[in-house]
Amino acid sequence: MMKRKGILVVVSGFSGAGKGTLMKQLVRTYDTYALSVSMTTRPPRPGETDGREYFFVSREAFEQKIRENGLIEYARYCGNYYGTPREYVERQLLAGKDVILEIEIQGAQKVKEMFPSALLLFVTPPGIKELRRRLSGRGTETEDVIKERLCRAQAEAEGIEAYDYLVINDDLDTCVEQMHGLIQNAHCAPGRNQELIEVLRTQLKEMCAHADGTAQGQS
Amino acid sequence: MMKRKGILVVVSGFSGAGKGTLMKQLVRTYDTYALSVSMTTRPPRPGETDGREYFFVSREAFEQKIRENGLIEYARYCGNYYGTPREYVERQLLAGKDVILEIEIQGAQKVKEMFPSALLLFVTPPGIKELRRRLSGRGTETEDVIKERLCRAQAEAEGIEAYDYLVINDDLDTCVEQMHGLIQNAHCAPGRNQELIEVLRTQLKEMCAHADGTAQGQS
Repeated sequence: MMKRKGILVVVSGFSGAGKGTLMKQLVRTYDTYALSVSMTTRPPRPGETDGREYFFVSREAFEQKIRENGLIEYARYCGNYYGTPREYVERQLLAGKDVILEIEIQGAQKVKEMFPSALLLFVTPPGIKELRRRLSGRGTETEDVIKERLCRAQAEAEGIEAYDYLVINDDLDTCVEQMHGLIQNAHCAPGRNQELIEVLRTQLKEMCAHADGTAQGQS
Repeated sequence: MMKRKGILVVVSGFSGAGKGTLMKQLVRTYDTYALSVSMTTRPPRPGETDGREYFFVSREAFEQKIRENGLIEYARYCGNYYGTPREYVERQLLAGKDVILEIEIQGAQKVKEMFPSALLLFVTPPGIKELRRRLSGRGTETEDVIKERLCRAQAEAEGIEAYDYLVINDDLDTCVEQMHGLIQNAHCAPGRNQELIEVLRTQLKEMCAHADGTAQGQS
Protein backbone atom coordinates (compact mmCIF):
# COMPACT_ATOMS: atom_id res chain seq x y z
CA MET A 1 0.00 0.00 0.00
CA MET A 2 1.44 3.32 -0.99
CA LYS A 3 1.58 6.12 1.51
CA ARG A 4 -1.08 8.69 0.78
CA LYS A 5 -0.07 12.31 1.19
CA GLY A 6 -2.63 14.73 2.50
CA ILE A 7 -4.32 17.42 0.46
CA LEU A 8 -4.23 21.05 1.48
CA VAL A 9 -7.79 22.35 1.28
CA VAL A 10 -8.61 26.03 1.36
CA VAL A 11 -12.17 26.97 2.26
CA SER A 12 -13.35 30.51 1.66
CA GLY A 13 -16.76 32.02 1.32
CA PHE A 14 -18.98 34.88 2.32
CA SER A 15 -19.15 35.68 6.01
CA GLY A 16 -22.39 34.00 7.06
CA ALA A 17 -22.12 31.17 4.54
CA GLY A 18 -21.73 28.72 7.41
CA LYS A 19 -18.10 27.72 6.81
CA GLY A 20 -17.30 27.27 10.49
CA THR A 21 -20.19 24.89 11.18
CA LEU A 22 -19.52 22.97 7.98
CA MET A 23 -15.91 22.36 8.76
CA LYS A 24 -16.52 21.42 12.36
CA GLN A 25 -18.98 18.75 11.22
CA LEU A 26 -16.64 17.57 8.46
CA VAL A 27 -13.78 17.09 10.91
CA ARG A 28 -16.05 15.42 13.44
CA THR A 29 -17.49 12.99 10.87
CA TYR A 30 -14.29 11.87 9.11
CA ASP A 31 -10.97 11.30 10.78
CA THR A 32 -8.98 12.01 7.62
CA TYR A 33 -9.19 15.74 8.24
CA ALA A 34 -7.17 18.15 10.33
CA LEU A 35 -8.41 21.66 10.82
CA SER A 36 -5.77 24.32 10.80
CA VAL A 37 -6.21 26.97 13.47
CA SER A 38 -5.27 30.48 12.38
CA MET A 39 -3.31 32.98 14.41
CA THR A 40 -4.65 36.46 14.95
CA THR A 41 -4.00 39.66 16.82
CA ARG A 42 -7.70 40.51 17.09
CA PRO A 43 -9.16 40.09 20.59
CA PRO A 44 -11.28 37.00 21.29
CA ARG A 45 -15.07 37.38 20.97
CA PRO A 46 -17.25 36.13 23.81
CA GLY A 47 -17.15 32.33 23.82
CA GLU A 48 -13.99 32.01 21.76
CA THR A 49 -11.14 29.97 23.18
CA ASP A 50 -7.44 30.32 22.45
CA GLY A 51 -6.29 27.44 20.24
CA ARG A 52 -9.83 26.54 19.15
CA GLU A 53 -11.21 29.42 17.06
CA TYR A 54 -7.81 31.11 16.81
CA PHE A 55 -4.48 31.34 18.46
CA PHE A 56 -4.78 34.80 19.99
CA VAL A 57 -1.38 36.49 20.12
CA SER A 58 0.10 39.93 20.51
CA ARG A 59 1.18 41.99 17.55
CA GLU A 60 4.80 41.49 18.61
CA ALA A 61 4.43 37.71 18.67
CA PHE A 62 2.73 37.75 15.27
CA GLU A 63 5.43 39.88 13.68
CA GLN A 64 8.07 37.60 15.14
CA LYS A 65 6.30 34.65 13.45
CA ILE A 66 6.34 36.53 10.13
CA ARG A 67 10.09 37.13 10.44
CA GLU A 68 10.70 33.44 11.15
CA ASN A 69 8.81 32.49 7.96
CA GLY A 70 6.50 30.58 10.27
CA LEU A 71 3.30 31.46 8.40
CA ILE A 72 2.05 30.04 5.11
CA GLU A 73 0.13 33.24 4.49
CA TYR A 74 -1.01 36.22 6.49
CA ALA A 75 -3.01 39.35 5.93
CA ARG A 76 -4.21 42.44 7.74
CA TYR A 77 -7.91 43.02 7.95
CA CYS A 78 -9.58 45.81 9.92
CA GLY A 79 -6.32 46.63 11.64
CA ASN A 80 -5.59 43.08 12.80
CA TYR A 81 -3.28 40.36 11.55
CA TYR A 82 -4.57 36.92 10.53
CA GLY A 83 -2.25 34.10 9.44
CA THR A 84 -1.76 30.34 9.02
CA PRO A 85 1.02 28.74 11.07
CA ARG A 86 3.14 26.61 8.78
CA GLU A 87 4.43 23.89 11.07
CA TYR A 88 1.08 22.29 11.97
CA VAL A 89 -0.04 22.21 8.33
CA GLU A 90 3.11 20.57 7.00
CA ARG A 91 3.24 18.00 9.77
CA GLN A 92 -0.38 16.93 9.21
CA LEU A 93 0.03 16.72 5.42
CA LEU A 94 3.02 14.44 5.82
CA ALA A 95 1.01 12.28 8.20
CA GLY A 96 -1.55 11.82 5.40
CA LYS A 97 -4.23 14.11 6.80
CA ASP A 98 -6.18 16.40 4.51
CA VAL A 99 -5.64 19.78 6.11
CA ILE A 100 -8.38 22.39 5.96
CA LEU A 101 -7.67 26.09 6.12
CA GLU A 102 -10.47 28.59 6.44
CA ILE A 103 -9.07 31.76 4.95
CA GLU A 104 -10.26 34.71 2.95
CA ILE A 105 -9.81 35.20 -0.73
CA GLN A 106 -6.44 36.98 -0.81
CA GLY A 107 -4.93 34.41 1.55
CA ALA A 108 -6.33 31.65 -0.63
CA GLN A 109 -4.44 33.02 -3.62
CA LYS A 110 -1.19 33.16 -1.66
CA VAL A 111 -1.62 29.54 -0.56
CA LYS A 112 -2.32 28.47 -4.14
CA GLU A 113 0.89 30.15 -5.28
CA MET A 114 2.91 28.38 -2.62
CA PHE A 115 1.04 25.04 -2.84
CA PRO A 116 -0.18 24.76 -6.47
CA SER A 117 -1.81 21.42 -5.72
CA ALA A 118 -4.02 22.93 -3.00
CA LEU A 119 -7.75 22.45 -3.52
CA LEU A 120 -9.74 25.68 -3.28
CA LEU A 121 -13.41 25.57 -2.25
CA PHE A 122 -15.74 28.54 -2.14
CA VAL A 123 -18.84 28.21 0.04
CA THR A 124 -21.97 30.22 -0.60
CA PRO A 125 -25.51 30.14 0.76
CA PRO A 126 -28.12 29.28 -1.88
CA GLY A 127 -28.98 32.95 -2.36
CA ILE A 128 -28.09 36.37 -1.06
CA LYS A 129 -31.36 36.85 0.77
CA GLU A 130 -30.47 33.77 2.76
CA LEU A 131 -27.00 35.20 3.37
CA ARG A 132 -28.48 38.41 4.75
CA ARG A 133 -30.90 36.42 6.89
CA ARG A 134 -28.04 34.37 8.34
CA LEU A 135 -25.96 37.46 9.05
CA SER A 136 -28.88 39.08 10.87
CA GLY A 137 -29.91 35.87 12.58
CA ARG A 138 -26.57 35.55 14.28
CA GLY A 139 -27.75 38.40 16.51
CA THR A 140 -24.26 39.41 17.59
CA GLU A 141 -23.62 42.01 14.92
CA THR A 142 -24.82 45.58 14.48
CA GLU A 143 -26.58 46.68 11.28
CA ASP A 144 -23.40 48.52 10.27
CA VAL A 145 -21.31 45.37 10.55
CA ILE A 146 -23.87 43.44 8.48
CA LYS A 147 -23.75 46.10 5.78
CA GLU A 148 -19.98 46.06 5.80
CA ARG A 149 -19.99 42.28 5.38
CA LEU A 150 -22.44 42.42 2.51
CA CYS A 151 -20.21 44.91 0.72
CA ARG A 152 -17.19 42.80 1.49
CA ALA A 153 -19.06 39.82 0.03
CA GLN A 154 -19.61 41.84 -3.12
CA ALA A 155 -15.85 42.25 -3.51
CA GLU A 156 -15.22 38.58 -2.69
CA ALA A 157 -17.74 37.42 -5.27
CA GLU A 158 -15.43 38.80 -7.96
CA GLY A 159 -12.87 36.13 -7.10
CA ILE A 160 -14.97 32.96 -7.25
CA GLU A 161 -13.48 31.82 -10.57
CA ALA A 162 -10.09 31.37 -8.91
CA TYR A 163 -11.56 28.51 -6.85
CA ASP A 164 -11.73 24.90 -7.97
CA TYR A 165 -15.27 24.38 -6.77
CA LEU A 166 -18.28 26.37 -5.71
CA VAL A 167 -20.14 24.67 -2.86
CA ILE A 168 -23.71 25.69 -2.11
CA ASN A 169 -24.53 25.38 1.58
CA ASP A 170 -28.27 24.84 1.57
CA ASP A 171 -28.59 21.77 3.79
CA LEU A 172 -25.70 21.22 6.24
CA ASP A 173 -25.44 17.40 5.98
CA THR A 174 -25.67 17.43 2.18
CA CYS A 175 -23.02 20.11 2.00
CA VAL A 176 -20.65 18.25 4.33
CA GLU A 177 -20.98 15.13 2.16
CA GLN A 178 -20.36 17.15 -0.96
CA MET A 179 -17.23 18.76 0.47
CA HIS A 180 -16.00 15.35 1.59
CA GLY A 181 -16.59 13.97 -1.91
CA LEU A 182 -14.80 16.85 -3.59
CA ILE A 183 -11.77 16.53 -1.35
CA GLN A 184 -11.52 12.74 -1.51
CA ASN A 185 -11.94 12.76 -5.27
CA ALA A 186 -9.02 15.11 -5.57
CA HIS A 187 -6.87 12.18 -4.43
CA CYS A 188 -7.57 10.61 -7.85
CA ALA A 189 -5.68 13.29 -9.80
CA PRO A 190 -2.70 11.76 -11.64
CA GLY A 191 -0.38 14.26 -9.97
CA ARG A 192 -1.28 12.71 -6.60
CA ASN A 193 -0.66 9.17 -7.84
CA GLN A 194 2.71 9.56 -9.45
CA GLU A 195 4.11 6.65 -7.48
CA LEU A 196 1.37 4.27 -8.65
CA ILE A 197 1.75 5.48 -12.24
CA GLU A 198 5.48 4.79 -12.16
CA VAL A 199 4.86 1.28 -10.84
CA LEU A 200 2.35 0.62 -13.64
CA ARG A 201 4.80 1.89 -16.24
CA THR A 202 7.65 -0.23 -14.95
CA GLN A 203 5.49 -3.34 -14.84
CA LEU A 204 4.14 -2.75 -18.34
CA LYS A 205 7.62 -2.19 -19.70
CA GLU A 206 8.87 -5.44 -18.21
CA MET A 207 5.85 -7.39 -19.34
CA CYS A 208 5.97 -5.98 -22.83
CA ALA A 209 9.68 -6.73 -23.17
CA HIS A 210 9.10 -10.24 -21.82
CA ALA A 211 6.18 -10.78 -24.22
CA ASP A 212 8.47 -10.30 -27.18
CA GLY A 213 12.15 -10.87 -26.50
CA THR A 214 13.19 -9.31 -29.76
CA ALA A 215 11.32 -6.07 -29.17
CA GLN A 216 14.26 -4.49 -27.34
CA GLY A 217 16.50 -4.84 -30.38
CA GLN A 218 14.06 -3.63 -32.98
CA SER A 219 14.14 0.09 -32.45
CA MET B 1 -33.98 26.42 -10.99
CA MET B 2 -31.26 27.00 -13.54
CA LYS B 3 -30.89 24.68 -16.46
CA ARG B 4 -27.95 22.39 -16.00
CA LYS B 5 -25.82 21.70 -19.03
CA GLY B 6 -24.33 18.26 -19.44
CA ILE B 7 -20.67 17.42 -19.04
CA LEU B 8 -18.71 15.70 -21.76
CA VAL B 9 -16.85 12.82 -20.13
CA VAL B 10 -14.04 10.99 -21.88
CA VAL B 11 -13.16 7.56 -20.55
CA SER B 12 -9.94 5.92 -21.67
CA GLY B 13 -7.87 3.16 -20.22
CA PHE B 14 -5.94 0.03 -20.96
CA SER B 15 -7.70 -2.58 -23.00
CA GLY B 16 -8.89 -5.04 -20.35
CA ALA B 17 -9.37 -2.41 -17.66
CA GLY B 18 -13.11 -3.07 -17.73
CA LYS B 19 -14.25 0.26 -19.22
CA GLY B 20 -17.16 -1.24 -21.13
CA THR B 21 -18.67 -3.01 -18.12
CA LEU B 22 -18.14 0.05 -15.92
CA MET B 23 -19.90 2.38 -18.27
CA LYS B 24 -22.79 0.07 -18.92
CA GLN B 25 -23.42 -0.18 -15.18
CA LEU B 26 -23.02 3.57 -14.72
CA VAL B 27 -25.60 4.32 -17.41
CA ARG B 28 -27.94 1.65 -16.07
CA THR B 29 -27.71 2.96 -12.49
CA TYR B 30 -28.09 6.71 -13.08
CA ASP B 31 -30.34 8.29 -15.68
CA THR B 32 -28.21 11.42 -15.95
CA TYR B 33 -25.86 9.69 -18.37
CA ALA B 34 -25.93 9.13 -22.09
CA LEU B 35 -23.41 6.77 -23.64
CA SER B 36 -22.07 7.86 -26.98
CA VAL B 37 -21.79 5.07 -29.52
CA SER B 38 -18.74 5.27 -31.76
CA MET B 39 -18.71 4.66 -35.48
CA THR B 40 -16.23 2.24 -36.98
CA THR B 41 -15.27 0.53 -40.19
CA ARG B 42 -14.02 -2.59 -38.43
CA PRO B 43 -16.26 -5.64 -38.80
CA PRO B 44 -18.48 -6.60 -35.85
CA ARG B 45 -17.15 -9.28 -33.46
CA PRO B 46 -19.43 -12.18 -32.58
CA GLY B 47 -22.21 -10.90 -30.33
CA GLU B 48 -21.81 -7.23 -31.27
CA THR B 49 -24.87 -5.37 -32.53
CA ASP B 50 -24.96 -2.36 -34.83
CA GLY B 51 -25.87 0.76 -32.81
CA ARG B 52 -25.00 -0.84 -29.46
CA GLU B 53 -21.25 -1.52 -29.36
CA TYR B 54 -20.61 0.55 -32.49
CA PHE B 55 -22.26 1.90 -35.57
CA PHE B 56 -20.68 -0.38 -38.16
CA VAL B 57 -20.32 1.45 -41.45
CA SER B 58 -18.40 1.15 -44.69
CA ARG B 59 -15.22 3.08 -45.32
CA GLU B 60 -17.07 5.23 -47.86
CA ALA B 61 -19.79 6.16 -45.34
CA PHE B 62 -17.15 6.96 -42.70
CA GLU B 63 -15.17 9.20 -45.04
CA GLN B 64 -18.36 10.98 -46.04
CA LYS B 65 -19.01 11.66 -42.32
CA ILE B 66 -15.49 13.11 -42.00
CA ARG B 67 -16.09 15.46 -44.94
CA GLU B 68 -19.38 16.65 -43.42
CA ASN B 69 -17.58 17.53 -40.15
CA GLY B 70 -19.94 15.08 -38.54
CA LEU B 71 -17.36 13.59 -36.15
CA ILE B 72 -15.96 15.15 -32.95
CA GLU B 73 -12.81 13.10 -33.37
CA TYR B 74 -11.70 10.11 -35.36
CA ALA B 75 -8.60 7.97 -35.69
CA ARG B 76 -7.28 5.01 -37.61
CA TYR B 77 -6.17 2.01 -35.66
CA CYS B 78 -5.05 -1.33 -37.16
CA GLY B 79 -6.33 -0.25 -40.58
CA ASN B 80 -9.82 0.71 -39.40
CA TYR B 81 -11.49 4.02 -38.69
CA TYR B 82 -13.05 4.83 -35.29
CA GLY B 83 -14.90 8.07 -34.60
CA THR B 84 -17.44 9.90 -32.45
CA PRO B 85 -20.57 11.19 -34.22
CA ARG B 86 -21.10 14.82 -33.28
CA GLU B 87 -24.86 15.22 -33.48
CA TYR B 88 -25.83 12.76 -30.73
CA VAL B 89 -23.28 14.20 -28.29
CA GLU B 90 -24.31 17.82 -28.75
CA ARG B 91 -28.02 17.05 -28.52
CA GLN B 92 -27.61 15.11 -25.27
CA LEU B 93 -25.39 17.78 -23.68
CA LEU B 94 -27.99 20.45 -24.43
CA ALA B 95 -30.64 18.23 -22.89
CA GLY B 96 -28.58 18.22 -19.67
CA LYS B 97 -27.22 14.69 -19.97
CA ASP B 98 -23.64 13.93 -19.05
CA VAL B 99 -22.34 12.26 -22.18
CA ILE B 100 -19.73 9.53 -21.91
CA LEU B 101 -17.30 8.75 -24.69
CA GLU B 102 -15.07 5.72 -24.52
CA ILE B 103 -12.12 6.62 -26.69
CA GLU B 104 -8.41 6.01 -26.80
CA ILE B 105 -5.77 8.42 -25.74
CA GLN B 106 -5.19 10.36 -28.97
CA GLY B 107 -8.92 10.83 -29.47
CA ALA B 108 -9.19 12.04 -25.88
CA GLN B 109 -6.67 14.79 -26.60
CA LYS B 110 -8.59 15.91 -29.68
CA VAL B 111 -11.83 16.07 -27.69
CA LYS B 112 -10.11 18.11 -24.97
CA GLU B 113 -8.87 20.58 -27.57
CA MET B 114 -12.35 21.01 -29.02
CA PHE B 115 -14.19 20.85 -25.65
CA PRO B 116 -11.78 22.27 -23.05
CA SER B 117 -14.31 21.70 -20.29
CA ALA B 118 -14.49 17.97 -21.00
CA LEU B 119 -13.66 15.73 -18.05
CA LEU B 120 -11.02 13.10 -18.82
CA LEU B 121 -10.96 9.85 -16.84
CA PHE B 122 -8.35 7.12 -17.19
CA VAL B 123 -9.32 3.66 -15.95
CA THR B 124 -6.74 1.14 -14.83
CA PRO B 125 -6.87 -2.24 -13.10
CA PRO B 126 -5.21 -2.23 -9.67
CA GLY B 127 -2.04 -3.75 -11.16
CA ILE B 128 -0.62 -4.97 -14.39
CA LYS B 129 -0.73 -8.63 -13.40
CA GLU B 130 -4.46 -8.20 -12.99
CA LEU B 131 -4.60 -6.52 -16.40
CA ARG B 132 -2.84 -9.47 -18.01
CA ARG B 133 -5.13 -11.89 -16.20
CA ARG B 134 -8.19 -10.04 -17.46
CA LEU B 135 -6.88 -9.96 -21.01
CA SER B 136 -6.23 -13.71 -20.94
CA GLY B 137 -9.46 -14.45 -19.09
CA ARG B 138 -11.54 -12.97 -21.84
CA GLY B 139 -10.66 -16.09 -23.82
CA THR B 140 -11.39 -14.56 -27.18
CA GLU B 141 -7.91 -13.31 -27.97
CA THR B 142 -4.77 -15.05 -29.17
CA GLU B 143 -1.51 -14.73 -27.25
CA ASP B 144 -0.25 -12.41 -29.98
CA VAL B 145 -3.16 -10.05 -29.53
CA ILE B 146 -2.65 -10.03 -25.76
CA LYS B 147 1.01 -9.16 -26.22
CA GLU B 148 0.13 -6.43 -28.67
CA ARG B 149 -2.34 -4.94 -26.17
CA LEU B 150 0.19 -5.02 -23.35
CA CYS B 151 2.66 -3.13 -25.50
CA ARG B 152 -0.05 -0.72 -26.55
CA ALA B 153 -0.84 -0.22 -22.85
CA GLN B 154 2.80 0.64 -22.30
CA ALA B 155 2.50 3.47 -24.82
CA GLU B 156 -0.83 4.61 -23.37
CA ALA B 157 0.56 4.73 -19.85
CA GLU B 158 2.81 7.59 -20.97
CA GLY B 159 -0.26 9.79 -21.41
CA ILE B 160 -1.99 9.38 -18.04
CA GLU B 161 -1.00 12.84 -16.82
CA ALA B 162 -3.17 14.44 -19.51
CA TYR B 163 -6.24 13.06 -17.74
CA ASP B 164 -8.09 14.78 -14.94
CA TYR B 165 -8.47 11.63 -12.85
CA LEU B 166 -7.04 8.16 -12.59
CA VAL B 167 -9.70 5.62 -11.63
CA ILE B 168 -8.66 2.25 -10.26
CA ASN B 169 -11.10 -0.48 -11.23
CA ASP B 170 -10.66 -3.00 -8.46
CA ASP B 171 -14.25 -3.62 -7.39
CA LEU B 172 -16.89 -2.84 -10.04
CA ASP B 173 -19.54 -1.25 -7.78
CA THR B 174 -17.01 0.89 -5.92
CA CYS B 175 -15.53 2.04 -9.19
CA VAL B 176 -18.93 2.95 -10.66
CA GLU B 177 -19.71 5.03 -7.56
CA GLN B 178 -16.35 6.72 -7.78
CA MET B 179 -16.81 7.61 -11.44
CA HIS B 180 -20.29 8.93 -10.67
CA GLY B 181 -18.90 11.08 -7.86
CA LEU B 182 -16.10 12.46 -10.02
CA ILE B 183 -18.47 13.40 -12.82
CA GLN B 184 -21.17 14.91 -10.61
CA ASN B 185 -18.61 16.87 -8.63
CA ALA B 186 -17.37 18.42 -11.84
CA HIS B 187 -20.71 20.23 -11.97
CA CYS B 188 -19.49 22.31 -8.99
CA ALA B 189 -16.71 24.01 -10.98
CA PRO B 190 -17.27 27.78 -11.14
CA GLY B 191 -17.07 27.64 -14.94
CA ARG B 192 -20.16 25.43 -14.95
CA ASN B 193 -22.07 27.77 -12.63
CA GLN B 194 -21.52 31.08 -14.33
CA GLU B 195 -25.22 31.83 -14.37
CA LEU B 196 -25.56 31.33 -10.60
CA ILE B 197 -22.43 33.40 -9.95
CA GLU B 198 -23.82 36.29 -12.00
CA VAL B 199 -27.09 36.16 -10.06
CA LEU B 200 -25.16 36.25 -6.75
CA ARG B 201 -23.10 39.21 -7.95
CA THR B 202 -26.13 41.17 -9.10
CA GLN B 203 -27.97 40.54 -5.84
CA LEU B 204 -24.95 41.51 -3.74
CA LYS B 205 -24.42 44.67 -5.74
CA GLU B 206 -28.04 45.73 -5.24
CA MET B 207 -28.05 44.86 -1.57
CA CYS B 208 -24.75 46.60 -0.91
CA ALA B 209 -25.90 49.75 -2.74
CA HIS B 210 -29.18 49.63 -0.83
CA ALA B 211 -27.37 49.14 2.48
CA ASP B 212 -25.54 52.42 2.06
CA GLY B 213 -27.20 54.90 -0.30
CA THR B 214 -24.14 57.14 -0.37
CA ALA B 215 -21.72 54.40 -1.40
CA GLN B 216 -22.43 54.93 -5.11
CA GLY B 217 -21.18 58.51 -4.96
CA GLN B 218 -18.03 57.86 -2.93
CA SER B 219 -15.71 56.42 -5.53
